[in-house]
Amino acid sequence: MVVKDGILMRMMRIKIFLVFMIPVLAVSNMAQSKQFTLDDLIPGGKTYKVLQPLSLTSAWWGNRLIRIEKDKCSILNQRINWEPLLSLADIKDAIKAQGLEEPKGLTLLSARFPNGDKTELVMIGSNYLFSYDWKLKRILRWQVYDEAISYQDFSNTGGSIAYSQNNDLFVDEYLSQKGQVKHHRISSDGGVNLVYGQSVHRNEFGINKGTFWSPDGRSLCFYQMDQSMVADYPLVDISTRIATLQPIKYPMAGETSHKVSIGVYNTLTRQTVWLQTGDNTDQYYTGITWSPDSKKIFLYHLNRDQNRCELQQFNAETGVSEGVIYEEYHQKYVEPQHGLAFLPWDSDKFIYWSQKTGYDNLYLYSLKEKRTLRNLTAGHDGVVLELLGFNAKTKSIIVNTTWTSPIQHNFYSVSVESGKAQPLGSAKGIHSGKLSADGSLLIDTWTSHEVPRQVDYINTATGKSVTLLVSYDQWNGYDVPEISCGMVKAADGHTDLYYRLIKPTHFDPNKKYPAVVYVYGGPHTRLVTDSWGYGCRGWEIYMAQLGYVVFVLDGRGSSERGRDFENVTFRHLGREEMKDQMQGVRLLSTLPYVDSNRLGVHGWSYGGFMTTNLMLTYPEEFKVGVAGGPVIDWSLYEVMYGERYMDTPQTNPDGYKENNLCLRAGDLKGRLLIIFGYNDPVCVPQHTLSFIRACETAGTHPDLLTYPGDEHNMQGADRIHLHEHITRYFEDHLK
Amino acid sequence: MVVKDGILMRMMRIKIFLVFMIPVLAVSNMAQSKQFTLDDLIPGGKTYKVLQPLSLTSAWWGNRLIRIEKDKCSILNQRINWEPLLSLADIKDAIKAQGLEEPKGLTLLSARFPNGDKTELVMIGSNYLFSYDWKLKRILRWQVYDEAISYQDFSNTGGSIAYSQNNDLFVDEYLSQKGQVKHHRISSDGGVNLVYGQSVHRNEFGINKGTFWSPDGRSLCFYQMDQSMVADYPLVDISTRIATLQPIKYPMAGETSHKVSIGVYNTLTRQTVWLQTGDNTDQYYTGITWSPDSKKIFLYHLNRDQNRCELQQFNAETGVSEGVIYEEYHQKYVEPQHGLAFLPWDSDKFIYWSQKTGYDNLYLYSLKEKRTLRNLTAGHDGVVLELLGFNAKTKSIIVNTTWTSPIQHNFYSVSVESGKAQPLGSAKGIHSGKLSADGSLLIDTWTSHEVPRQVDYINTATGKSVTLLVSYDQWNGYDVPEISCGMVKAADGHTDLYYRLIKPTHFDPNKKYPAVVYVYGGPHTRLVTDSWGYGCRGWEIYMAQLGYVVFVLDGRGSSERGRDFENVTFRHLGREEMKDQMQGVRLLSTLPYVDSNRLGVHGWSYGGFMTTNLMLTYPEEFKVGVAGGPVIDWSLYEVMYGERYMDTPQTNPDGYKENNLCLRAGDLKGRLLIIFGYNDPVCVPQHTLSFIRACETAGTHPDLLTYPGDEHNMQGADRIHLHEHITRYFEDHLK
Repeated sequence: MVVKDGILMRMMRIKIFLVFMIPVLAVSNMAQSKQFTLDDLIPGGKTYKVLQPLSLTSAWWGNRLIRIEKDKCSILNQRINWEPLLSLADIKDAIKAQGLEEPKGLTLLSARFPNGDKTELVMIGSNYLFSYDWKLKRILRWQVYDEAISYQDFSNTGGSIAYSQNNDLFVDEYLSQKGQVKHHRISSDGGVNLVYGQSVHRNEFGINKGTFWSPDGRSLCFYQMDQSMVADYPLVDISTRIATLQPIKYPMAGETSHKVSIGVYNTLTRQTVWLQTGDNTDQYYTGITWSPDSKKIFLYHLNRDQNRCELQQFNAETGVSEGVIYEEYHQKYVEPQHGLAFLPWDSDKFIYWSQKTGYDNLYLYSLKEKRTLRNLTAGHDGVVLELLGFNAKTKSIIVNTTWTSPIQHNFYSVSVESGKAQPLGSAKGIHSGKLSADGSLLIDTWTSHEVPRQVDYINTATGKSVTLLVSYDQWNGYDVPEISCGMVKAADGHTDLYYRLIKPTHFDPNKKYPAVVYVYGGPHTRLVTDSWGYGCRGWEIYMAQLGYVVFVLDGRGSSERGRDFENVTFRHLGREEMKDQMQGVRLLSTLPYVDSNRLGVHGWSYGGFMTTNLMLTYPEEFKVGVAGGPVIDWSLYEVMYGERYMDTPQTNPDGYKENNLCLRAGDLKGRLLIIFGYNDPVCVPQHTLSFIRACETAGTHPDLLTYPGDEHNMQGADRIHLHEHITRYFEDHLK
Repeated sequence: MVVKDGILMRMMRIKIFLVFMIPVLAVSNMAQSKQFTLDDLIPGGKTYKVLQPLSLTSAWWGNRLIRIEKDKCSILNQRINWEPLLSLADIKDAIKAQGLEEPKGLTLLSARFPNGDKTELVMIGSNYLFSYDWKLKRILRWQVYDEAISYQDFSNTGGSIAYSQNNDLFVDEYLSQKGQVKHHRISSDGGVNLVYGQSVHRNEFGINKGTFWSPDGRSLCFYQMDQSMVADYPLVDISTRIATLQPIKYPMAGETSHKVSIGVYNTLTRQTVWLQTGDNTDQYYTGITWSPDSKKIFLYHLNRDQNRCELQQFNAETGVSEGVIYEEYHQKYVEPQHGLAFLPWDSDKFIYWSQKTGYDNLYLYSLKEKRTLRNLTAGHDGVVLELLGFNAKTKSIIVNTTWTSPIQHNFYSVSVESGKAQPLGSAKGIHSGKLSADGSLLIDTWTSHEVPRQVDYINTATGKSVTLLVSYDQWNGYDVPEISCGMVKAADGHTDLYYRLIKPTHFDPNKKYPAVVYVYGGPHTRLVTDSWGYGCRGWEIYMAQLGYVVFVLDGRGSSERGRDFENVTFRHLGREEMKDQMQGVRLLSTLPYVDSNRLGVHGWSYGGFMTTNLMLTYPEEFKVGVAGGPVIDWSLYEVMYGERYMDTPQTNPDGYKENNLCLRAGDLKGRLLIIFGYNDPVCVPQHTLSFIRACETAGTHPDLLTYPGDEHNMQGADRIHLHEHITRYFEDHLK
């Protein structure tokens, strides 16, 4: 079943439909061209999917690539053709024939192919788990749950599944020999206050799940979060007959936070042991990693101040700590966002991540020697974004990086021995991908400002690739505005910043246009990339069509540019970010076709904070702003994210005062619309409502909208409505 | 001390400053005239008090009139001059001399003069009660409370006081002989669920307090309200460090309501007996009245459907019911809003109120004969508004009525024997007043469209009066718009409706002006009266100054025009009221200076309901609306008011569907701003939020503002901000 390297050499180009889309000056007399609607451009729109590039949904079955469609799967053969593999109809027939009840809304899109040695796919839903052998055309395993399960975590080794019901944790152990399932209840005191097996620390520190199967599939490491001491934030559900309280546990900056413990459940002994982490008050635990022999557990232990982290080793059987094997300190903050990766060919050595040089790099560590051996990714200009995995044969790691360009994501194969890096795939654009089981093959989906979407199939040893799909230009036939990318110096005078500029559709260089700055500005996000339209959002196209210049700049404080680029904002969020946005505004003002008396700004979340802050700080520059789900006062934001960048209100009172926008509500001069999700558990409504209240007291007049029932972001049809509303506000006041 | 009738005959006109203000066409070349600011015109404005007419704060001390100022009191002498009576400085001196601690913020404005035979005033605050003898210049009684008291109810007989602390009820009995106070705790299980001694049934049915002293001052009748079975509505206080839940007990239409019991506490026996009212589920008890001998208690017992009420008599000592002595039924609803009034000269007879003829009238009832003797106020065109009291000497009642004109309030003295009515005071305008102890004298404060404010002193036997104060024209020197009053036919084709019309300041008949309809439209309120500016609100003047025509109409469904005028709206609130408003709009459209393409509408509460409803029902007529604290869905309004007019959602599903504005959110075409108090316990936020949600789902775009911390109405500086915001919306979209 393993695809040999040689195969790629015999590959033939499959027939593809390819149209190059180069940003063009829209020809203003193309009267027959179509106009975009918001439904075309915004996710959730009725016609949104029509205007998306072609895509290819795939999964690895061992080292064979499977293409997944709703109702069938195909497999890539040695001639690089898709051969039929199985169909949903066959599965449904088998279900029926075996007298089972077909789950509702079944499609193949979530199919898993856990084991390259078995012709078996696994389907997991909110109330079922089944497996199907496409060779035997039989259902092999069948589990149905009366009560919905969530946080499903499937062990590819053995096939056991961990899941949560009502905040308690369960395992259904799969005894494959007997085809039986053994049910384990791991906790019984779960509830609002005590949460088992779910993501903790509000998904900061790279945490996105709460259970971790041992490599042998026999033990489950899991988080337990005690949030009984955390204050409730009172959200309200207005959709019930009488509005009902919908409280969430929300620890605000400087307030009492939750306590996390880590258990290890052994399915053989049916016992849980707890890792002896010491007093867990104000501590964070992340990067949970099993040793390859399933005997040790490693994790990063971070203090509440987030300036010191220790990599600790535990005995998985006893929970006893075996000491700190590595530690890191930074006077601002450290950010352990990734677990460890053991070398498949040497279980003594693992790779860890660090920004200690100023950029994300991967370091090789020896357990025997108890020391870091070397930086595997030294000598590159840029950061490592992702470690996709290993090619054990070539003893190399496959990484995604910004090494080629600060606005690109490109793959490299890096030799663990020599550190020599070999680029993989196109040298352009933004790439994402997934390695096959042994790392010999890589499926690479990418885009650039010239390429809507392309999917390549790459041999990670040779670097040879074949293209499986090139999308057409989904905007063909429409009036597409000119979208360009450029650089401007940051307010520090030397750092290069990237911007995206969209000119109005049917651009006339002799006209004066209003301009809107779209801003985010916060950490862990960037907006300008060498992807289709330079990453531009549909709304920007729409605004261009209505006759606006749109401008987007990634200033200092944003991501993928290294530690110091980001942490310049430490303890005074907003200050440097605004200075950099104003560098962009200065550039805009020099453009002869921009009417700098009609400048607007819009942003969401951190961008809502920036928008409001810019409106208050530069009232003479910005006439109109629309802030969505904004942070207004960082003391109302949560502990984990907030304190990383701001410390606590107690230790940084001046910082919290400086960027508390309520205290400057009286400075509002232009028109400012604030929009928030009424059930936003991220930026709780108290932010916006406090600012509205402060403006009312100060005698200034913001405008307001809320989406009852929506959380931090509007989705589906609400997202269309939202952008109609945002657009109308600029049309009302900036036109 | 008693002022003899003859005194008035010797009265001389005191020197008064008098300017007649007649509505005038504003002269457009009066360039030197001043412009109003919102602060001048709106309560809560910084300069609002400056532009108010002169006033006279007074109280009766027996039959002597006392003028109260912050720091002194004067008494009207026989020559109708004010003589100094006492000063705050004297009181403060006495407090100091007697070694007592002066309460903070002491002024005389709340002074009481309970007993015409004693030279003693009583002051009651939230944490003190004291009395002062202005002849002896001594503090006679001194009580200080550690914890704030509320719902203070002072018995003029004897001087005991009932009050509430944390929803429990207490009496401090005054033993005047010994100058001592005896403390009584009447309840100890008070709390959120069980409330003692406070107003019940959400202040409907004329209820505005929860304790009722017996005439002998020895027993206290009180309400106990059990609301443990009532659902919480989750209001949220965002002014705390972390937003906190602020739940209120709020029974919505058709839902489980509270249960009320009535206790009688005897200060001699220190026992409470409970009136045996039977099962108190879904029952209302109002009009609580003691018999003059303190032995009986009467009350109206109303069913939840509010279409039948029984006047019941109870033995105050045992609580035993002595039967129903009178009852009333109406197929729509009955409205017992007033207690009984026993004739001072015949304790067998009392007066009760009824609308059974179609208008509020007063009926004489004999307990002995167990029957209604006669309608004391028959034969008049209009309603009785208030029974001020009796003149026992002339055996007459003094009433305030609309008998003179549907837009006026005028006093009459009516002979209980003959029913003959004698007008008292000016035949113009809107009067309010208070009778002296024996009813021989009446202080009459009034206004008309020609008179800003006047205070007259009237002999109720002879009708002779002397004027104590005539205010200047507080608008003198300002650009005042023309305000007129007129009539239009209701949509029924025959009922006369009154409107008020304000033309733009500096009116030019050749121009076309935008017009704004200000609307309330609901029961128990009217807007157009023969008072200063025909009752116009300051904002209307402000809008006229900005160049708007403002129009206000009292349609059917509003108050003071009798039962059938009001109850035409039964089970379908909004329908007839809108038809009548459109009669006004038709009239507006015929005015050559009104631009009927620029028509706006604004209203609050019921007027917010009307505004939203008009915007949805007549989208072609109204371009812009501002709805404040609106009812959107009557099933979200409370039981007592809501079910009176709409029955329950269960028994009137079609009616609730017809006026549920959420179901018509898709009909919104014009610009609609909705504003609500974030802590509104009257029209809870679910109304506005449900409508906003419905619009978002339907793809329409209302605008929004909320005032966190404010309740149903904005007060103080917020009221100015609110009207700036409302005005800006019309300026943005209607100009």
